[in-house]
Amino acid sequence: MLDGHGDNIHQYHGRIKANFSSNVWYGAMPDAFYQHLQDQITNTTNYPSPTAESLTVLIEQYYNLELGSCIVTNGATEAFYLIAHLFQGKSSIIGIPSFAEYEDACSLHGHSLEFEATKNVLDSALDKFDLVWLCNPNNPDGHIYPVADILLVLNRFPSTTFVVDEAYIEFTHDVDSVIPYVQEYPNLIVVRSMTKKYSIPGLRLGYIIASPQIIASLLRYKMPWSVNALAIAAGEYVFQNNRVNPSFYIKDALFNSAQLQGSIDKIPGIAVHKNNCTFFLIELSGTTSAEMQIRLIEKYGILVRDASNFRGLSPYFIRIAVQSQSDNALLLNALAECINAASGRLC
Amino acid sequence: MLDGHGDNIHQYHGRIKANFSSNVWYGAMPDAFYQHLQDQITNTTNYPSPTAESLTVLIEQYYNLELGSCIVTNGATEAFYLIAHLFQGKSSIIGIPSFAEYEDACSLHGHSLEFEATKNVLDSALDKFDLVWLCNPNNPDGHIYPVADILLVLNRFPSTTFVVDEAYIEFTHDVDSVIPYVQEYPNLIVVRSMTKKYSIPGLRLGYIIASPQIIASLLRYKMPWSVNALAIAAGEYVFQNNRVNPSFYIKDALFNSAQLQGSIDKIPGIAVHKNNCTFFLIELSGTTSAEMQIRLIEKYGILVRDASNFRGLSPYFIRIAVQSQSDNALLLNALAECINAASGRLC
Repeated sequence: MLDGHGDNIHQYHGRIKANFSSNVWYGAMPDAFYQHLQDQITNTTNYPSPTAESLTVLIEQYYNLELGSCIVTNGATEAFYLIAHLFQGKSSIIGIPSFAEYEDACSLHGHSLEFEATKNVLDSALDKFDLVWLCNPNNPDGHIYPVADILLVLNRFPSTTFVVDEAYIEFTHDVDSVIPYVQEYPNLIVVRSMTKKYSIPGLRLGYIIASPQIIASLLRYKMPWSVNALAIAAGEYVFQNNRVNPSFYIKDALFNSAQLQGSIDKIPGIAVHKNNCTFFLIELSGTTSAEMQIRLIEKYGILVRDASNFRGLSPYFIRIAVQSQSDNALLLNALAECINAASGRLC
Repeated sequence: MLDGHGDNIHQYHGRIKANFSSNVWYGAMPDAFYQHLQDQITNTTNYPSPTAESLTVLIEQYYNLELGSCIVTNGATEAFYLIAHLFQGKSSIIGIPSFAEYEDACSLHGHSLEFEATKNVLDSALDKFDLVWLCNPNNPDGHIYPVADILLVLNRFPSTTFVVDEAYIEFTHDVDSVIPYVQEYPNLIVVRSMTKKYSIPGLRLGYIIASPQIIASLLRYKMPWSVNALAIAAGEYVFQNNRVNPSFYIKDALFNSAQLQGSIDKIPGIAVHKNNCTFFLIELSGTTSAEMQIRLIEKYGILVRDASNFRGLSPYFIRIAVQSQSDNALLLNALAECINAASGRLC
């Protein structure tokens, strides 16, 4: 899907004062990291390694995995397209609502597709499918698949491969990674993003962790140089610093998220689908998300994610990614102000 | 092909003093451009536009094309994979020797493949093929397809689509672009690289120019965000400055190339395949290119492109991309010194 994602701030040329439309960490880039990236621009005069080899090895070492357990990708998105390509023409089931690129990648590569609500997907007859797509925590609603439940289906359906997208795992305390299980389960593929916690989605950086057999198969579908030199440098910095971002205060963000969820839920005409993540869904009653999005941009300079194009959601859903307390206050005020308390409609 | 390309300098950790292995412009990045890229790092905290829309429009305006005539890509390489995907399962003919990614992209997408020497490919029965792949000037040998000859086959074979890769068009004076003909010929697709003249292959930036019908079809195969925010910023800078790089002295580079070709050709045991480009092939007689490459790295810290893995070339070919006069002198001295004049073998 080329249009219709969040963080489409580039379309609004300077009109946006507060951006709730992207699940990326809202804090600034750490100074030392910023300086490092600036210094690395000289290295863009050479080709990057075709497979980002140096970073691949750092990741494998960090997670204590055998060599050949990782592919670095152009954002997590390239990972989904590579996986869908490897399984071209096969059958997939996707837990919904979820990130649209699973469906798009599967459609592009001729999968037969079924969808099931996130809360039911692990209880489905999964032996019918070659691939199961799970996002943990799930984007956009923060639904959580307990690791024990994932291990259960990995054991129960050994002929079905499970893609677990952990792009947002750092944005909740409630999800444990399944990366430690890739060597034990040849039917497990984990996808990670490196741009969310470090606020560098513009650089495009993610990775796949799986058994060396799966990784070797996926590499046959990979074009060279898809990850740029600056993204590789950023990734090396992140892993050389043990993935610690000194500007990343998840505890505060989760506290702010809970507070914002509680406050929005009190506004008549809006229901919050509460969760323990830094992003969550709200559901309007008297106005559509599209109408609300336009009003928030035009009157308040606030960008939210119209979530109505997530398969499984109605035209009344908006995704909110928590921001700083001052920005959150702006949003809360704007929502309260522009909804008529009696009708739930826009004032 | 993930391994075996040129500019694999990342494998040699600081051992390389002079790098002739990549066709990228050897001059430094212009200061103002470098500064601009440094300033743009703050923008990587947002997602790039999914289709690099702002840059796409700048390119269309620059070439005076209708809207929808361009796709910006993650290097020219993404362009080849997109095109091969659109024509999946079709038949392709590739002029050889040439860039390995045409063949790899076609193989990945199930094309039936034939190969023909560059000098003969336009005289082949091209109506047998869905796609014809031409690199102009050709990498690695600098072979040139005259525009008049390309127009002839575009007219003669309207059911065959011609992919013309103009990645190196700035590195010769002898090739005119076929971009002005895309609106007239719905069977023409032009691919360009933006990283060669500005020495930014690490950023990954290219584009496709074709009729809006072809572009719309290609977009159906494109994943979002494949081009990173810094590459987009670089491309905007390039087109806002009318594609002029003040550090790019093509006349000098061509003069140096002619001089280097003439000098190497005098070394016994080496034949130069002369051309009017900034890169050219040399052919050894008594030693393989692999042996020579290792010797040049280990004894002289010089990296050349072992060209023996180009389809159609023997194990005796090396590709040289001209560098500064002082670096060229290093190479010339090294080649003369390490070849035994009598046997053509390594000393």
